[in-house]
Amino acid sequence: MTEPFLQECLAVLSRTPVVLDSLLRDLPETLTAASEGPGTWSPSEVVRHLIYGEKTDWMPRMELIQEHGTSRPFEPYDHEGQFREGGGKSLAALLDEFRELRQNGVARLRAMNLTSEQLDSKGMHPALGLVTARQLLATWTAHDLNHLMQISRVMAKRYKPEVGPWVAYMSVMK
Amino acid sequence: MTEPFLQECLAVLSRTPVVLDSLLRDLPETLTAASEGPGTWSPSEVVRHLIYGEKTDWMPRMELIQEHGTSRPFEPYDHEGQFREGGGKSLAALLDEFRELRQNGVARLRAMNLTSEQLDSKGMHPALGLVTARQLLATWTAHDLNHLMQISRVMAKRYKPEVGPWVAYMSVMK
Repeated sequence: MTEPFLQECLAVLSRTPVVLDSLLRDLPETLTAASEGPGTWSPSEVVRHLIYGEKTDWMPRMELIQEHGTSRPFEPYDHEGQFREGGGKSLAALLDEFRELRQNGVARLRAMNLTSEQLDSKGMHPALGLVTARQLLATWTAHDLNHLMQISRVMAKRYKPEVGPWVAYMSVMK
Repeated sequence: MTEPFLQECLAVLSRTPVVLDSLLRDLPETLTAASEGPGTWSPSEVVRHLIYGEKTDWMPRMELIQEHGTSRPFEPYDHEGQFREGGGKSLAALLDEFRELRQNGVARLRAMNLTSEQLDSKGMHPALGLVTARQLLATWTAHDLNHLMQISRVMAKRYKPEVGPWVAYMSVMK
């Protein structure tokens, strides 16, 4: 019997690659390479960021908490790390890579079969201090949804020059 | 040869039912019935709103423009209309209904095979005045993405009580 909060988070985490695939694969670059201006991310760059998080952030930190508790602080997370890794992959290749990494991460998380007690176990964040495994899991899940929100917003804004008078009804475009 | 802007919009419009299905079907109600407070919509209610729009707004207006131009103004859109129709359907049934309506609408739009000239044809909005078919199409597409953004935001906020100190990094939760 999977702990209910863990089950809920797993439901979201395991869907994200399918959601992003159905939203983005084979879309025109007018959408997938759109951004909100200099220094902001396109949908493709968000997928690169999610890939980087799978490799360096979420499950590595969960494993650190379960194995070492607070005795080993997390590695600081590099919020621009995805841009320091070799770029040049197509969006299709990025979506494939994210799906594989996420499937692997979700499988590792399921295999841990964390109890309610284990979800309350603590780790040490280099900037935020004491955090729990449950908070890490909630943050991972909300982070997915936050970036789905960002991708939808960036793509919606691409239509700002095209909607004419309807811009008055679209608060996202203001 | 489909007009490029029409093709781009069709790519988004035809995906939305699949995206919503992969995001929402069989998720726990802690997420699908979550809202941002009284008077705001849950993900389920957003799907009801999208269903209502398929029936009364988007393709009916496009057909009115192509058949009658500016001589017949659009019916005013009822932004709460979905709540005046029989409720009580499960989210699974709503997702099925939306998919069928959207497939039908997209098929009708494809069959029109609008030229660039037809996309510039005008209709009469009851509040906004003159609008073009192209603006209607852009607004329909941005409206999908706007509501996907809303659903993602509502679900992300559900984790606010759970993320602990990470709330400092999540602007969506402020």
